Amino acid sequence: MGSKIAVLGAGMIGTSWAAIFAQAGHDIVLYDCNTKQIDQGINSVVKNLNDLHKYGLVKKNSKPSKNIQGTSSLSDALTGAVYAQESVFEDLETKISFYKEIDSVIDSNTIVGSSSSSLIASAFTEKLSCSHRCLVVHPVNPPHLIPLVEIVPKPSTNKSVTSSVKGLMLNIGMDPIVLSREIDGFILNRLQGALLNEAFYLLENGIASAEDIDKTLSKGLGRRWAFMGPFETLDLNAPEGIIDYCNRYSSLYLELAKQFEKPKLWDSTVVEKLSVTMKNKYPNRDFDQRQKLRDRRLAALAAHLADDNKI
Amino acid sequence: MGSKIAVLGAGMIGTSWAAIFAQAGHDIVLYDCNTKQIDQGINSVVKNLNDLHKYGLVKKNSKPSKNIQGTSSLSDALTGAVYAQESVFEDLETKISFYKEIDSVIDSNTIVGSSSSSLIASAFTEKLSCSHRCLVVHPVNPPHLIPLVEIVPKPSTNKSVTSSVKGLMLNIGMDPIVLSREIDGFILNRLQGALLNEAFYLLENGIASAEDIDKTLSKGLGRRWAFMGPFETLDLNAPEGIIDYCNRYSSLYLELAKQFEKPKLWDSTVVEKLSVTMKNKYPNRDFDQRQKLRDRRLAALAAHLADDNKI
Repeated sequence: MGSKIAVLGAGMIGTSWAAIFAQAGHDIVLYDCNTKQIDQGINSVVKNLNDLHKYGLVKKNSKPSKNIQGTSSLSDALTGAVYAQESVFEDLETKISFYKEIDSVIDSNTIVGSSSSSLIASAFTEKLSCSHRCLVVHPVNPPHLIPLVEIVPKPSTNKSVTSSVKGLMLNIGMDPIVLSREIDGFILNRLQGALLNEAFYLLENGIASAEDIDKTLSKGLGRRWAFMGPFETLDLNAPEGIIDYCNRYSSLYLELAKQFEKPKLWDSTVVEKLSVTMKNKYPNRDFDQRQKLRDRRLAALAAHLADDNKI
Repeated sequence: MGSKIAVLGAGMIGTSWAAIFAQAGHDIVLYDCNTKQIDQGINSVVKNLNDLHKYGLVKKNSKPSKNIQGTSSLSDALTGAVYAQESVFEDLETKISFYKEIDSVIDSNTIVGSSSSSLIASAFTEKLSCSHRCLVVHPVNPPHLIPLVEIVPKPSTNKSVTSSVKGLMLNIGMDPIVLSREIDGFILNRLQGALLNEAFYLLENGIASAEDIDKTLSKGLGRRWAFMGPFETLDLNAPEGIIDYCNRYSSLYLELAKQFEKPKLWDSTVVEKLSVTMKNKYPNRDFDQRQKLRDRRLAALAAHLADDNKI
C-alpha cells in the first residue's frame, strides 16, 4: 500500500481510476499532455473520492491517500510507479504512438494496463521493450462506481504480470476477471453487442418501441443480472437447475438465433430515431445532469448490493 | 378495484400473480385441477403478500384484498371474473386443451392473459369463441418482485382488450410493454437468448470461466441495466450521445457479430460442466434456499430502485 500509481490520461476514465487507487491508499500521479486538463482532472478525482466517501464505497480498513499530483511530464509520472493505468483516446494510432513514448521513459519493472475497451494490447504494445509487462485492464464506465475489470493478457504478457495485476485489482476493491486469451470486444462488449444487435433488430422491425425495449432490461431482465449472472439465473429458473432449463428451452433459443438476420451495421435511420427518442424523453435535462443522475444511482446501487444486511 | 380476478394454475408463477392482484385490492380465485396444490398455493400467495408488505412493495393507496379463495372448479373460478391470468405448464398440447376447457365455461366479457414465456397466443387460442379476448401477458420470474410484463396481442385480439389489459397492469403497479405483433420469444427472451448464445460461445471456446462470465453481468453490465435500458446506456456512453456512440462503435459490433458462429444447440458437455460449476459454488445451499435468497435480493432491489430518495 502507498505505492505510486501513474494514471495516464486525465479524462473521464482516468480520473475515475485515480479515485479508486487513491481510496485504497496509493499515491497518484495523474499525467496528461494537456496542462489545462490536469487541473480539471485533479478536481474530478477529488469529486470522485468524495462520492466514494458519501456512498460508503471506500474499501474497509483502507487509508485513502491525499497525495494526488498532476504532471505533464510522462517521465515524472512513470518514474518509480509500480503500475500505470493508461486511459488515452481509444484509437489505434494514438495508442501506438503513446506506448512508444511510454516505452522510452518507463522503469524496468513498471506494469502498464490499458483501459482499452475493444483494442487488444497485442495491437499496440507488441514491439516495445516493456511488451511483456503490458496488457488490457478494461473497466466499466464509470470505473469507480462499477466493480468489474476485464484483465486481458497478451500471449507475450508475463504470467507473473497478469497475477500481479489481478492481485492489485482485488486489493483496491475491484472485481477482476481474467480472460484466457485475447479476443476482440473481450467478454463485456461481446455480451453487450449480442444483446444490442437483437435490440436493434427488434426496433428496426417495429416489434416494440425503443422505450419498451429499454424497459425490458430496466424493469425486467436487468433486475436479476444486477447481482446474478446469466448462467446462475438459468440455474434458478427451472425446478431441477440448469440442465433442466437447457432441456426445456435450448431448442427455443436455437430457433430464435436462426431467425436472426445476417449481421449488418445498425441502420442509421434507426439510430437517428433513437437520438430523437432520447431527446424527447429528457427535454429539460442536459447530458451532464443525466450522467450525474446515472452515477448517483450506480453509487447507491453499489452500496445497496454490497450490504447483505439489506436483504 | 375489488373486481374478481381468476388465477388459473397455482404453481410458482400463478401464486406470485395472485399476490400482485390481491395487494392492489382485487378479489382472487385461485384455480388448480390438483386440490392439494390449491392449499399449498393459498399459503404461497399469503407468503408472497407478506413479502410485498415487508419490503414496502405494496402499491401506494391500495387496500390489499383478503378475499383469496381456492377452487378446483374452472367454472367457479371464471364466473364473474373480469380477467383471468393463465399460468399452466408451458407445453403446446397442455395449453390447447386447457383453453378449450376455458372456452366452454368462460363469461362473455372475461379477458384471458397467458403467462406463456415463448409460445404465442395464436398457437393455442385461435379457434375459440373467446379468441379475440385472448393474448399473452408474460411476466418475469418471480412476477411479484420484478415489475416488467410483456403484453403480446394476436392479430385477432380486440384492440380494446389489449388496452384494458395494459390499464389493468398499470393499475396493479406492474410495468407493461406492448408488442406491435407476435414474435417467438417476445422481447425479453430474444434479448436474453442473444446474450446467452454469446455467453455459451465464450464458455465453450474457453475464453473465460462460467463464474467470470456471470461476474461480467453481476458486477458490471447488469449494474447499469438494473435501472437503465441498453439504448439509454449507449446514449450516456459517448460525449455527444447515441449517434456519436454508434459512429464510434457500430463497426466494432458488426465485426464481433460476424465472428459469431452459425447458431447451434448449446453444447451438452458445456451444460453438464455448468451444472457442476453451480454445485461447486453452492455446496451447502439447497436450491430452495438459493431461490429464497434471490427473491429477498430482488425484493430489496425493487424497493431500493423505487425510492428516489436513495440517490
